Amino acid sequence: MTSTFKRIIVGKPIATSEEEHQRIGKPTALAVFASDAISSTAYATEEMLLVLLMAVAFPTSHSYLVPIAIAAVVLLVVVGTSYTQTIHAYPDGGGAYVVSRENIGPTASLVAGASLLVDYTLTVAVSISSGVLAIGSAFGFNDKATLRIGLALFFVGMMCLGNLRGLKESGKVFAVPTYFYVVMLFTFLAGGFYKLFTGDLGEIHTSAELAKHYAEEHTLMTSASLFILLRAFSSGAVVLSGVEAISNGVPAFRKPESRNASQTLAMMAAILGLGFLGISTLAHHLKPVVDEGGETVLSQMAKSVFGGTNLLYYGLQFGTFAILVMAANTAFADFPRLSSLIARDGYLPRQLGNRGDRLVFSNGILALSGMAAVLIVVFQAEVSALIPLYAVGVFTGFSLSQFGMIKHHLKLKEPKWRQGLAINALGCLSTTVVLAVVVYSKFTIGAWIPVVVIPMIVMVFRRIHRHYLTTDRRLAAEPGQKVRRRTNTVVVLVGKVTKGSLTALAYARSLNPDRLVAVTVVAEPEEQERINHQWQDHQIPVELVSLYSPYRELTRPILRYLDDLDARYEDDFVTVIVPEFALQHWWQQVLHNQSALVLRTRLRSRPNTVVTSVPFHLEGDHDVVASGIE
Amino acid sequence: MTSTFKRIIVGKPIATSEEEHQRIGKPTALAVFASDAISSTAYATEEMLLVLLMAVAFPTSHSYLVPIAIAAVVLLVVVGTSYTQTIHAYPDGGGAYVVSRENIGPTASLVAGASLLVDYTLTVAVSISSGVLAIGSAFGFNDKATLRIGLALFFVGMMCLGNLRGLKESGKVFAVPTYFYVVMLFTFLAGGFYKLFTGDLGEIHTSAELAKHYAEEHTLMTSASLFILLRAFSSGAVVLSGVEAISNGVPAFRKPESRNASQTLAMMAAILGLGFLGISTLAHHLKPVVDEGGETVLSQMAKSVFGGTNLLYYGLQFGTFAILVMAANTAFADFPRLSSLIARDGYLPRQLGNRGDRLVFSNGILALSGMAAVLIVVFQAEVSALIPLYAVGVFTGFSLSQFGMIKHHLKLKEPKWRQGLAINALGCLSTTVVLAVVVYSKFTIGAWIPVVVIPMIVMVFRRIHRHYLTTDRRLAAEPGQKVRRRTNTVVVLVGKVTKGSLTALAYARSLNPDRLVAVTVVAEPEEQERINHQWQDHQIPVELVSLYSPYRELTRPILRYLDDLDARYEDDFVTVIVPEFALQHWWQQVLHNQSALVLRTRLRSRPNTVVTSVPFHLEGDHDVVASGIE
Repeated sequence: MTSTFKRIIVGKPIATSEEEHQRIGKPTALAVFASDAISSTAYATEEMLLVLLMAVAFPTSHSYLVPIAIAAVVLLVVVGTSYTQTIHAYPDGGGAYVVSRENIGPTASLVAGASLLVDYTLTVAVSISSGVLAIGSAFGFNDKATLRIGLALFFVGMMCLGNLRGLKESGKVFAVPTYFYVVMLFTFLAGGFYKLFTGDLGEIHTSAELAKHYAEEHTLMTSASLFILLRAFSSGAVVLSGVEAISNGVPAFRKPESRNASQTLAMMAAILGLGFLGISTLAHHLKPVVDEGGETVLSQMAKSVFGGTNLLYYGLQFGTFAILVMAANTAFADFPRLSSLIARDGYLPRQLGNRGDRLVFSNGILALSGMAAVLIVVFQAEVSALIPLYAVGVFTGFSLSQFGMIKHHLKLKEPKWRQGLAINALGCLSTTVVLAVVVYSKFTIGAWIPVVVIPMIVMVFRRIHRHYLTTDRRLAAEPGQKVRRRTNTVVVLVGKVTKGSLTALAYARSLNPDRLVAVTVVAEPEEQERINHQWQDHQIPVELVSLYSPYRELTRPILRYLDDLDARYEDDFVTVIVPEFALQHWWQQVLHNQSALVLRTRLRSRPNTVVTSVPFHLEGDHDVVASGIE
Repeated sequence: MTSTFKRIIVGKPIATSEEEHQRIGKPTALAVFASDAISSTAYATEEMLLVLLMAVAFPTSHSYLVPIAIAAVVLLVVVGTSYTQTIHAYPDGGGAYVVSRENIGPTASLVAGASLLVDYTLTVAVSISSGVLAIGSAFGFNDKATLRIGLALFFVGMMCLGNLRGLKESGKVFAVPTYFYVVMLFTFLAGGFYKLFTGDLGEIHTSAELAKHYAEEHTLMTSASLFILLRAFSSGAVVLSGVEAISNGVPAFRKPESRNASQTLAMMAAILGLGFLGISTLAHHLKPVVDEGGETVLSQMAKSVFGGTNLLYYGLQFGTFAILVMAANTAFADFPRLSSLIARDGYLPRQLGNRGDRLVFSNGILALSGMAAVLIVVFQAEVSALIPLYAVGVFTGFSLSQFGMIKHHLKLKEPKWRQGLAINALGCLSTTVVLAVVVYSKFTIGAWIPVVVIPMIVMVFRRIHRHYLTTDRRLAAEPGQKVRRRTNTVVVLVGKVTKGSLTALAYARSLNPDRLVAVTVVAEPEEQERINHQWQDHQIPVELVSLYSPYRELTRPILRYLDDLDARYEDDFVTVIVPEFALQHWWQQVLHNQSALVLRTRLRSRPNTVVTSVPFHLEGDHDVVASGIE
């Protein structure tokens, strides 16, 4: 039943061996690996502005945007340069998990792994929520929270299904939305800066009124405190999320991999940095304000720059939505990949480590979708509510990865290691400081959640690892231990004599057991007579035992009978054979075999007992594959 | 795993044989069977008033309340008298399903069954939503829809859990809230009528303003049209829901059952009729208006009568909540009971018909809770939105049941049959007319839903029935068909040599199969060497076959090997034995046996193939029950 149902939903299974290792060119690689990072331009400026508007009087609030954006871009350059080192050191792919495992130790790698899993989940929740806001701005439904949440869940569901069916990170799928957004973004920036230099860029009119709204709700300062600047910077720092993607994907590049990858990284950082700085600069002049439950800042600005809701405006909104969906989709590839690495080290259920089976990825995809859906519901698909949670995982990963690189240089002392060490040390220092800033400035508004959750995940990792070590030790056969000779009593459960029960009896006989008996449960003497009669009619060469159960309850009389068997024969296995129907449709399956299921569950913990279902296949509409009957 | 998890949640299984058939006295029976009916006084007046206020100008709107209430009470008396006939004719319990099946035919009984299942689901949704409104009136949170929905879902969840754990319809549990509500209700009515006669009963002050609100939103008439009167009457007619409960429960009464049951029915009708008429009369004078998102009408009136929010007021509100929860709880007993009747007739999955197993009721309880939860979410826990759906199922059941009684009298011609016939004919006629009125007057505002859903359920019933008939026919053994002698090849899957795989090998040998082979899947030559070495070390007397799979994929090489076996031996069963760990905790189970699960799923549809898991028990912390090893 599960199988057929799954087949319908997710399609035919694909063999691992079909997994392709196609190398991709730089333009495609940029689209595949950069969508996550570049898409953050859609919300980063707004998130900085929100922090400022809630604390600083309008229009002073806007004067901090550009300086903070510059600080974030400087950080981006530092981290990007630092990751170039990783790309060259780990041409087989160097995610934070691997780099910390190889260089620091298991605990650090587990913290990095947990951080990244949290990060991927938030990438899905934030990107989809933000994408819905982009569409909602264009169609004016952002005030309807239920609709937004519903749409966000719908898109998560679609991506979950798409990925379960095996939507690949095919370059083309990524290239179109990513480049479309980049083109629309730079068109918007070009238009905006043209208007800025010709003096046509006025302030957005609605802002005065909304600014008053902030003044009413919050006590505003005339200039920003350090704490507010740090908090705003922490919001802006989310543009760095996704920067590490390329270092994971080095093996996917054409040769020379490391060089191509680092060039792509530079290109991505340039687009991201320019886009973010450009939007922030225009926001400084256009003076949009954050309109919760209304339009996004980018949408307000686009209307102003493009002169209304024309084709260019809708192009940008739709492009924003599209790249954000792509960004979320990268997490659907990254999450199961990382899970499989962690599982192969024995810190997650082992079957997740078996990349050969599609099921592995399915579990990862389902887990990711489920957790992202929970986040979307709990945080009402509000990007601003999710952002404080986001940066903690991202910067924990950065810091550990770069600390790992520091140890890597100190250990290997490869050519130019001092230069590399300096770069990574600067990177590590900056991201650690930013991590501290994020936790400090946003702790009370959400950053406490990852601070609590990440160690909890690490504890689960350890617990799983300990369990595997223990069971492996306890299961290990002792040297020279041998297989013992035992007897077997086979008990076939029979309701009435059908082709199914005859097949089960044929199967039982083919096993040549030491003892073979058929058992039936009856509620009335007439029933017993009927089955005795059938037994004679079909000349069944197996002893029949009737158990009496007035309430037609199956499990208890059978258990009692098995206890009797156990008492009678020593050193004996008991095999309970249950005839089962294998039906074509899963919904039909629901209508049968339920008693067998209950019995199997009850007998599971019984020592020396094995329950075997003998399936009887009803195929096609009229044919019965009557195995074992003549 | 499922088992342990379920055990934790729902507690130990209980044997059917423990099912008690305690006889209960009239006062307890009244509490058990009447809570559903009496609880409807909490919302019926308000629902009538809502219809009137949306169409008729204030205060004329209130002048129709008492006449319509009288009409509903007359209907109650007619239906109650009619059901007295059923109680005497079916001392073993005569629900609409049984009465229509015995007297009309299968289609009628299926329609009655479907109607009642819909009815029970709505009972849960309406009662719980209304109960939350009662509490919300006292604490003033009815404007917070999300909170109301959340609370309603919470209570449904609690009742689901409580019933899964085996909360019984114990008399005491019902008696306290039911009688508490009855006492509070009559205290309220006594106070109200005392004030009415002393002239102290003023109109509720807030009403003028709210009345204006209706005038603004709707075009109001100076007097009610027939359509509006019918629609208001349809709302009032919900007080009849639950009236049939006693006729189902006759066997639970002390002897003489039928007489005691009909006296209890009369008592219930009296309380219900007096309560409903009393509330409606006071509403006529107090002139409350429906305040959606605010207080219930009963709460407004109680404040006025009791002179504020004192202990008596809170008593009534809490009593209302408590009896409504009890009302919902009756559905949790009725739904699985009816499902089991329908299942025993082969129209629902058979296992539901097996009352001996607790699982049966669990399924019914889960289905009921799930559907009620969906209704609560979709209709935002608003009683007024659910009411139009409610009456259709109730009155379909009434009409069919009484039409069945008409045919019963005509068939049996028992003493005084003409009198009985007249009573039931009047009952049937009235309820059929009311059914038509309900469908006509509320079709567009919700009554279309049960009109669509009930036939769909009947179609599902028929489809299931047809499936059972077909499979029974196809599974039936032909006369003289015999069990054939076949051979068996046993394949034991081995990863590495552990105590678990040694046990599985011991089990396989105990079966004395015609051919026995152990199969392992290896990815590298070193792996193969290692297992060969282990094989020699443990002197395993079974042939070992190594299958090579570079990607560590299990399923495909094994399937290919089985295909080879099939090609080699004719008339042969293949038994695939998979060692399995039986662990103590369900969460540990998740960490193992997943490959076995996948394999089992893949092999399910393979003819002549049987998959057997041989569990190896790791018990306690250090002991290993090493069956089959020496």
